[in-house]
Amino acid sequence: MAYSFISHLACPKCQAEYFPDEKHQLCSCGSPLLVKYNLEKMKKQIKREDLLTRSSDLWRYHELLPVQNPSNVVTLGEGMTPLVSMPFIGKDMFIPQLFMKDEGIIPTGTFKARGAAVGVSKAKELGVKELAMPTNGNAGAAWALYSARAGIQCTIVMPVDAPAITRNECIAADSKLYLVDGLISDAGKIVARVIEEKGLYDASTLKEPYRIEGKKTMGIEIAEQLGWKMPDVILYPTGGGVGLIGIYKALNELKSLGWVEGELPRLVAVQAKGCAPIVKAWEEGKASSEFWPDSETIAFGINVPKALGDFLVLEALYQTKGCAISIDDEEILEEQKKIATYEGAFICPEGASAFVAARRLRETGWIKKDDCVVALNTGAGIKYPNTVQRQVPILQPEDRIQISLEL
Amino acid sequence: MAYSFISHLACPKCQAEYFPDEKHQLCSCGSPLLVKYNLEKMKKQIKREDLLTRSSDLWRYHELLPVQNPSNVVTLGEGMTPLVSMPFIGKDMFIPQLFMKDEGIIPTGTFKARGAAVGVSKAKELGVKELAMPTNGNAGAAWALYSARAGIQCTIVMPVDAPAITRNECIAADSKLYLVDGLISDAGKIVARVIEEKGLYDASTLKEPYRIEGKKTMGIEIAEQLGWKMPDVILYPTGGGVGLIGIYKALNELKSLGWVEGELPRLVAVQAKGCAPIVKAWEEGKASSEFWPDSETIAFGINVPKALGDFLVLEALYQTKGCAISIDDEEILEEQKKIATYEGAFICPEGASAFVAARRLRETGWIKKDDCVVALNTGAGIKYPNTVQRQVPILQPEDRIQISLEL
Repeated sequence: MAYSFISHLACPKCQAEYFPDEKHQLCSCGSPLLVKYNLEKMKKQIKREDLLTRSSDLWRYHELLPVQNPSNVVTLGEGMTPLVSMPFIGKDMFIPQLFMKDEGIIPTGTFKARGAAVGVSKAKELGVKELAMPTNGNAGAAWALYSARAGIQCTIVMPVDAPAITRNECIAADSKLYLVDGLISDAGKIVARVIEEKGLYDASTLKEPYRIEGKKTMGIEIAEQLGWKMPDVILYPTGGGVGLIGIYKALNELKSLGWVEGELPRLVAVQAKGCAPIVKAWEEGKASSEFWPDSETIAFGINVPKALGDFLVLEALYQTKGCAISIDDEEILEEQKKIATYEGAFICPEGASAFVAARRLRETGWIKKDDCVVALNTGAGIKYPNTVQRQVPILQPEDRIQISLEL
Repeated sequence: MAYSFISHLACPKCQAEYFPDEKHQLCSCGSPLLVKYNLEKMKKQIKREDLLTRSSDLWRYHELLPVQNPSNVVTLGEGMTPLVSMPFIGKDMFIPQLFMKDEGIIPTGTFKARGAAVGVSKAKELGVKELAMPTNGNAGAAWALYSARAGIQCTIVMPVDAPAITRNECIAADSKLYLVDGLISDAGKIVARVIEEKGLYDASTLKEPYRIEGKKTMGIEIAEQLGWKMPDVILYPTGGGVGLIGIYKALNELKSLGWVEGELPRLVAVQAKGCAPIVKAWEEGKASSEFWPDSETIAFGINVPKALGDFLVLEALYQTKGCAISIDDEEILEEQKKIATYEGAFICPEGASAFVAARRLRETGWIKKDDCVVALNTGAGIKYPNTVQRQVPILQPEDRIQISLEL
């Protein structure tokens, strides 16, 4: 039986189709390409119960992934991240059925590992020897490390302000790392130049069609972890938006397979007040977004002033009766602290923004009390250690903790 | 059916027995206590196939864990960490069947999460409201966060030189954190004083009997992930040694249940040249170790000059025909870099020491070419970002990457 049921690549804008056995980047019309599967055939051959004996990583869904030969799979065991109940915060915000999909519990510490695992594996299958990409840090770190495992050379360009630890990861992987005194959009321009000059594979967000397939497994896992039921709402911190597009794609595929039934969850794109192009477009009922000037937020991963896949994000919001909402940096840091203090989970600022969004949307009544709500934490707080600070007393070995003066 | 098959606590030194429903710390003879289970009864009621439909975390083994009421389980989804093949490094060191059990892929980013999850859950079950512990950083971070989730107050004392990120985790969890200008043994003295003065629950390594039960699940998972087979060798970076004691305990329990068969793996205690009390004791054929003066190593987590459970570690080594070996800091950093560059895994220095040990033991012939070898990586490299450094070029947005001068 086929390891993958991939059939072809299709353009969501002009409907052009491409063979999956060749290297493709964007469609000739400029749109990202999406991977299509032979779901009718797969439906006859695979049942969801067949997954029971498989490894607890994202490759358990290999029929719905683009890699055709298992020998090309480049894996560090990524996937099947915990779906954690949030009883205290849930009570605090009047959402009893509140869950966190914790993407900090994955190689490289962020959900970018999913895109990198599948993207790099498919690049290997297509014979790629060298790739390049701009990044806000975490995607670059993930692609650098997975590329190292695949034996693919890797050029990464990230803003000087990107989380410092992601630099160390790229260095550890021995990738060609450059910083740019600017934003990810500036990094993108530098990458575009080197790709043109050297003919490298372009691994920029959505310029290769496969990372989205890795990211979509978050949606499949949420459904499987809820006993093949879909939640009512999924909140997603949105920069490039690939995860949201992927989750929407995955749930539609699962519906086609008959593995889930009913209405799709209302998808929520969460952005920072300092960089909210999707929110603006959604509020104006538009089909695509405009470049957001002078963008700034502590949630660095969602500082993306213009996403190539904006129209796909917006379509997913409109189709699922979802919404888009922007959050203050100050509220993000408050929520991050609250979640660590009451739920014991030290999450990243991007993830915290999704919880603030849940809180706001519950206050307005958009989220109902009985809704089953999943907020995506896209990465581990330990990659952003400086978001939490406090003076700590230093004792000498012979000292006592002064109980009366205790913290 | 019982959620846990716990029967009692037993002293491995004087054989005294204790009820499991009361708070206990050390045995009255000063030895750590071990948890015993009713394995005969369990064997009749549970088959390993029953695990298939369970969640992919360590609570899938709840019958072999001490928590009796599932409502007391404090979990962030820890466990079932990847068992990753290491083809490049394995080839490089002539161990084709080399695996890494990657404990970086777990809440808080280190294997300490296992001990904390089970230790805190049992503390909650026993009605503990406040606990205290010394730590080299990672255990304190894990206990601080899990205690926060359990609503238990937590006092943590760690050396000023402990990994900085673990401080931020303790701060995020809102624990009472103190630094000491000294080693973990100095932190231990400060903790002992505050415990005596305030009557707190002592969560120091092996002074409560339950963290070892969390750690032992590494052994169960390795067996399950290898298809209920045991590897030939397991290498373990050894500070306090709880994980090694736990793995030895777990595999013996699995043998009693009939879930695995044959010889136990040869267990290897890996230490740093700058702190090798277990290695010294093993080389001298002794049953316990001596305090190692002026200990120092970059692998901070294994800087433990005298472990309370040293005699249990040594017993496990002698019983399994294992060994103990110490490694240079320089070799550790070299191996860490090599593993990131060739396997795409950015691991911690402690974990890297286990791989160097495998390399050395293969060179001497102690590890055979056909041995199935598992090295434990105890934590994520991102918690030790400064172990990997390099100057990185900074570009302006209009710059080009100089191909001729490329890195």
